[in-house]
Amino acid sequence: MTTAPLNIAIAGLGTVGAETARQVLDHADHIASRAGRVLTLTAVSARDASRDRGFSMDGIAFEQDPVALAHRDDVDIVIELIGGDDGPALDLIEAALEGGKSVVTANKALLAKHGARLAVLAESKGVHLAGEASVAGGIPSLKMLREGLAANRISRISGILNGTCNYILSTMETTGRDFEDVLKEAQDLGYAEADPSFDVDGIDAAHKLALLTSIGFGSLPDFDAIDITGIRSVSSIDINSAANIGYAIRLLAIAENRDGNIVASVQPTMVPLSSGLAKVDGPLNAVAVEGQPIGSVIAVGPGAGAGATASAVLADLVEVAAGRAAPFFGCAADQLKPASNNGSADYTARFYLRLTVYDRPGVLADVTAVLRDHHVSVESILQQGRAAEGGNGTVPVVLTTHDINNSEMTAAIREIKSLDAVTAEPTVMIISGEG
Amino acid sequence: MTTAPLNIAIAGLGTVGAETARQVLDHADHIASRAGRVLTLTAVSARDASRDRGFSMDGIAFEQDPVALAHRDDVDIVIELIGGDDGPALDLIEAALEGGKSVVTANKALLAKHGARLAVLAESKGVHLAGEASVAGGIPSLKMLREGLAANRISRISGILNGTCNYILSTMETTGRDFEDVLKEAQDLGYAEADPSFDVDGIDAAHKLALLTSIGFGSLPDFDAIDITGIRSVSSIDINSAANIGYAIRLLAIAENRDGNIVASVQPTMVPLSSGLAKVDGPLNAVAVEGQPIGSVIAVGPGAGAGATASAVLADLVEVAAGRAAPFFGCAADQLKPASNNGSADYTARFYLRLTVYDRPGVLADVTAVLRDHHVSVESILQQGRAAEGGNGTVPVVLTTHDINNSEMTAAIREIKSLDAVTAEPTVMIISGEG
Repeated sequence: MTTAPLNIAIAGLGTVGAETARQVLDHADHIASRAGRVLTLTAVSARDASRDRGFSMDGIAFEQDPVALAHRDDVDIVIELIGGDDGPALDLIEAALEGGKSVVTANKALLAKHGARLAVLAESKGVHLAGEASVAGGIPSLKMLREGLAANRISRISGILNGTCNYILSTMETTGRDFEDVLKEAQDLGYAEADPSFDVDGIDAAHKLALLTSIGFGSLPDFDAIDITGIRSVSSIDINSAANIGYAIRLLAIAENRDGNIVASVQPTMVPLSSGLAKVDGPLNAVAVEGQPIGSVIAVGPGAGAGATASAVLADLVEVAAGRAAPFFGCAADQLKPASNNGSADYTARFYLRLTVYDRPGVLADVTAVLRDHHVSVESILQQGRAAEGGNGTVPVVLTTHDINNSEMTAAIREIKSLDAVTAEPTVMIISGEG
Repeated sequence: MTTAPLNIAIAGLGTVGAETARQVLDHADHIASRAGRVLTLTAVSARDASRDRGFSMDGIAFEQDPVALAHRDDVDIVIELIGGDDGPALDLIEAALEGGKSVVTANKALLAKHGARLAVLAESKGVHLAGEASVAGGIPSLKMLREGLAANRISRISGILNGTCNYILSTMETTGRDFEDVLKEAQDLGYAEADPSFDVDGIDAAHKLALLTSIGFGSLPDFDAIDITGIRSVSSIDINSAANIGYAIRLLAIAENRDGNIVASVQPTMVPLSSGLAKVDGPLNAVAVEGQPIGSVIAVGPGAGAGATASAVLADLVEVAAGRAAPFFGCAADQLKPASNNGSADYTARFYLRLTVYDRPGVLADVTAVLRDHHVSVESILQQGRAAEGGNGTVPVVLTTHDINNSEMTAAIREIKSLDAVTAEPTVMIISGEG
């Protein structure tokens, strides 16, 4: 080691922060050999100074106020693991970058909202902003896309980016149980938050997709342009229907270049059982990238958890300490193009549609007439017995279409929803031909 | 672009070299935005100057002798795509590094043999030696292991590293055809060389494993310590037997830390049909890494082909041009530990064994007595009908064992081979519990 040691600070000592601290302390030699210099944990910040987190605080300064870490002379790199897209996390990162300190963060919400501005700030100060842990947990997904595939023109990025949703969907698949029941179990097991909306409504996956999209297509992150549907409306009927035609349901985050428009969405999607994504079970994540000249690559690994997330934080730390971290977005942040997300771009797909309708004469005729008027060709249709809905006079109707333009399909669904006999919001999913 | 342009030279204009040149010429702006500077192709070397390779040679110097590229003042980075583990490829790389020029290469055989020395040379000159394209084609596998998982203590690296073998094995699996037949087809299709031994005998996979092992475990590359078995002995009987018990056969390259010994092997292995590796079909490659704190990650993608390989070459080129390429082995090359490969380390596994024996009384009793004497517990045994071997009086006996120490198993096999009734070399495979 001929290079001077670097001092690091960790803000936030939850499960990830504590694991990161333990790794830095317990495996200092290994990390030093990879970084080419010694890294010393000099300061931390957390809500509670006294809690036992499995490492000794001897010789490590404690700051009640995380922002104070940015102003310490004995801190060169700040690791932000507080969370939240504003407040102390943002204050800390801004103060650190302004003061010429590099920052490592796992904060996807913050990066999706403020990442471009913060990257410009970092680059203007000649320091690094790194966030591998913000997307797909331990999978080095940003590095793969940004550096490993640097020269490719990306056409499509797809992923399973939320482990909680994937755990719920794959458990529904293997047990036949329904959403609410599995969600409750996931909460009991600690896989889902008490307020699960960030996960099950697709927000978390969309934050991650906004970052992948930005890196892959060289455009400013644009969370608001992502068309988001969560998994609350996925029922065991949908899971069974999918299995019957050879598909599994996954919450897919997809960004693709459709004739120059970057279209990004997060939605439950039917993927072929034979595809790589259908085999991504439980809390795993996956990121698949298609582009030229590579063709396609997929990486699968743990999407969450203290060890996996710490692995990504530490990878960033090594790169930053060695002075070889790439710009967060792969190119200079002030050269990112305006976001060209355009959710209304036309595309063609097969669709799955589940309606809840009154079980009375003429309903199927009405529904199929609407579909015919919008040129939607029905591939299969199944009206299930009354018992399936518990005797309130409604029954589920499940149908799949042949390839149809999405705007035709959307118009047809709007009209179907307005039918008297249709009693609930229809469930619509794309049936993906790809993995 | 505030940084000065960089000039690059390509030695070797086969399919990969020509594709790399076309990408550099046709997508210069994209590559410049990622590298932060303009890259200009100033010189090439190839056997034949006049052949049309899909790009214009106007303004590009041609050198008959590749080593001359290293001495040109208008070349900053040399891309070596000649191949061969000595001769002009080595001369060129040495001359370039000696002259202070960075080198990008796809040459696994050369890196496995000379990589440590060349990396020391590069580091002493303050330039880069990069070789992402040498392992697993387009999959950024070295980058994932070396940088994305930098802080992990690696326990196991496993991979499908040879697309030709994987194409042959997965085609045997889906068609029921035998090795020689599928090999011939692969040769006709251009997936296998006229002399296929580098691929089907496991040499190519072992070169790649030597590099992954070195990076993952921080030790000098040691090709000679890898226990190599190719796929020539895999028959359709083995493929069927595997399928019957829920397994597929893949040529696995595995390096693992067994009680401090790094044990590396390339051998046909039975992997569970439900595992990720069993689903890696055709010419795909896969690299799986296990370590702490990550757990495990797997990446799957194209293991060969002009586009995939050029993608990896260009990724290196961008990193080198941006001045942020990591040291080839992840740590300073002069700090690599001596190789601690030890093929004789003990381990426990289930084994598959196929014998060719004379169909006469007492043979099974002799075989099973040997197994008993070596404490090998037989899980299943099947002697197939005489027709299966074409009437020369021999029949195949296929058996699987419960967990047994490898040295006991090796001793048992040695004794079984010496039995009069055993007429051919036994086929032995590990039955892997893991993917």
